[in-house]
Amino acid sequence: MSPAMNTLFFEDFKPGHLGRFGPQHVTAEDIRAFASEFDPQPMHLDEAAASRSLLKGLAGSGWHLCSITMRMMFDGFIGRTASLGSPGVNELRWLAPLRPGDDITLDVEVVEARVSKSRPSTGIVTFKTVASNASGHALCEMVSPIIVRRRGETGEVR
Amino acid sequence: MSPAMNTLFFEDFKPGHLGRFGPQHVTAEDIRAFASEFDPQPMHLDEAAASRSLLKGLAGSGWHLCSITMRMMFDGFIGRTASLGSPGVNELRWLAPLRPGDDITLDVEVVEARVSKSRPSTGIVTFKTVASNASGHALCEMVSPIIVRRRGETGEVR
Repeated sequence: MSPAMNTLFFEDFKPGHLGRFGPQHVTAEDIRAFASEFDPQPMHLDEAAASRSLLKGLAGSGWHLCSITMRMMFDGFIGRTASLGSPGVNELRWLAPLRPGDDITLDVEVVEARVSKSRPSTGIVTFKTVASNASGHALCEMVSPIIVRRRGETGEVR
Repeated sequence: MSPAMNTLFFEDFKPGHLGRFGPQHVTAEDIRAFASEFDPQPMHLDEAAASRSLLKGLAGSGWHLCSITMRMMFDGFIGRTASLGSPGVNELRWLAPLRPGDDITLDVEVVEARVSKSRPSTGIVTFKTVASNASGHALCEMVSPIIVRRRGETGEVR
């Protein structure tokens, strides 16, 4: 299959379940490396402090889980989608702790797909993604729109 | 000042402007390092591809900017706050690209502070944070709640 045939455009995203991606293994080292740089709260770095926290044990930063989710979406479909980026996130809920050793699975649903009014050569596809651990517990839910080029629209998008 | 006296509790957060934090310098190497691991879309890694994108030049991942914002909040006040974590983010908007060389400033406002009904030893403080570049352009806006221990409540929180 040629790269062009492999590209997903706006028309390829219909409301409904898009796919399940992963699993992605997360280690204590991954958790500490992210936390050291971006979120050095004790519950993300230190087992003893974490065991006394609301999280009851070492747990990854919520921003780490979001970043892992982004990477899993990239590997799952965004890497071969004519994506132009995202204006933000509509909803983001951290439901349960990301633990060392977790194997994360991502379920992605298209909740809405509509042509953009301001840029008619593009569409807005809104995804609901749920990141779960191997026990099937949801750790993070996110609803987020992505701007996707329409098929056959090859001109410059401003 | 002792560490205990330096700790911020729920009662220390009143609606209004909390503070301005930063600047935090962001390099092209920072942008590429984050993108390589978590968001390897061409506009975050490759100058030529980025110049043809909607972003019109190399730009950091939105998740990178969120993670930088988290670190700036930690350094600014969360690191000395009796914080118990966050249930999620209510609103997140990426307004303009994060560019190599940007110096990011964070303005943080308390939009609401209320005692938790389910855990009365804690309060929910909702922050609005705006990350801006040196020209004063807002790059990212976020509204997010954080659970904070009330002063004098030293018991275990479940």
